[in-house]
Amino acid sequence: MLIGKVIGTVIATRKDEALVGAKLLITQPLDMKGNEVDSPLIAVDTVGAGVGETVIYVSGSVAPFAVRKHEVPVDAAIVGIVDRIDLQL
Amino acid sequence: MLIGKVIGTVIATRKDEALVGAKLLITQPLDMKGNEVDSPLIAVDTVGAGVGETVIYVSGSVAPFAVRKHEVPVDAAIVGIVDRIDLQL
Amino acid sequence: MLIGKVIGTVIATRKDEALVGAKLLITQPLDMKGNEVDSPLIAVDTVGAGVGETVIYVSGSVAPFAVRKHEVPVDAAIVGIVDRIDLQL
Amino acid sequence: MLIGKVIGTVIATRKDEALVGAKLLITQPLDMKGNEVDSPLIAVDTVGAGVGETVIYVSGSVAPFAVRKHEVPVDAAIVGIVDRIDLQL
Amino acid sequence: MLIGKVIGTVIATRKDEALVGAKLLITQPLDMKGNEVDSPLIAVDTVGAGVGETVIYVSGSVAPFAVRKHEVPVDAAIVGIVDRIDLQL
Repeated sequence: MLIGKVIGTVIATRKDEALVGAKLLITQPLDMKGNEVDSPLIAVDTVGAGVGETVIYVSGSVAPFAVRKHEVPVDAAIVGIVDRIDLQL
Repeated sequence: MLIGKVIGTVIATRKDEALVGAKLLITQPLDMKGNEVDSPLIAVDTVGAGVGETVIYVSGSVAPFAVRKHEVPVDAAIVGIVDRIDLQL
Repeated sequence: MLIGKVIGTVIATRKDEALVGAKLLITQPLDMKGNEVDSPLIAVDTVGAGVGETVIYVSGSVAPFAVRKHEVPVDAAIVGIVDRIDLQL
Repeated sequence: MLIGKVIGTVIATRKDEALVGAKLLITQPLDMKGNEVDSPLIAVDTVGAGVGETVIYVSGSVAPFAVRKHEVPVDAAIVGIVDRIDLQL
Repeated sequence: MLIGKVIGTVIATRKDEALVGAKLLITQPLDMKGNEVDSPLIAVDTVGAGVGETVIYVSGSVAPFAVRKHEVPVDAAIVGIVDRIDLQL
């Protein structure tokens, strides 16, 4: 899993019917110190994340598990909202 | 999921029989501001996307879910057409 | 899916038994204009591709779908032979 | 699989219910000589790894297998603690 | 699939129980001309590969297929030993 910051939303009226009602959040990947890394992606949210929050997200074919529906074509999902990161370097 | 712009089509007469009838669109990945990033890929379309449209696509083994057929060898699928992106940076 | 050019073959006598009889082709990834990008990979072929042909290939865990056998350890498969690419930039 | 060093923990109170009780460790990827490579990621731990230990981790959709629960949205898991690496270059 | 050279072994006493008895080999990715590319990874071996041999390996969630056990958390597996590479550039 990686962490990211929710920076926006994307609206798509015409879409796969399994995505109807899905909340699609634009997520900026962060390193563990909070610096932006890589490009933003779209992740489906099921934990109630909002813009500005730091989240944990998964990528790949485990993302549908977060949606609790089978065979949903999503490849990224927000699975937690970060309270605290403890780095012991 | 990522966004991209449909920039063309690819024609393949000899192909895996599960792909017969599939609409294969060449998709240029974009960042959330609409700039081109990375190289184009081929995505199967099931939402009626056309050349010039900005789309949401999935990558990897969730792509067959968009096709609603089991065991189709596709690793990218267009799952939505972007109406609007709201960035709150 | 990406496109590539078949540039060779690989022979392995000792191999996973699910791969016995599989045709393993070395494939050089191309961009949509035909330029070489990235490093060659080995893809299993099930559509009768030959050296010098431009092909469509899939990567990842959907590759076994092309082989029509369950649980075959292949992570790339040629699924079509390109007739024509239409770019409308 | 890759190796990494556990460098911290992440706390998330609001999260996917399948992750309740999961131990989420921040893992810094290492090369085989122990140098840091790439950015840290979050991996679920099921083998009792602790901060400072060098571990083996898997990425992608096989990570849930380590958790022994079906359909858990995790994409990285620590599957072993490294005792020794023998390089014969 | 990619090719690599086996350059060592990794020993982990504490590990996922599905990995008990698994032979974990450190594999240096090679290009098709035998030059080293990218960083070494750990692949499970089921074809009897040894240090110094050039092998074919798979990555991702098809790797468990090589182990012939379900739900084993491995993301790379050696599936063949290379006898010959024929490049026709």
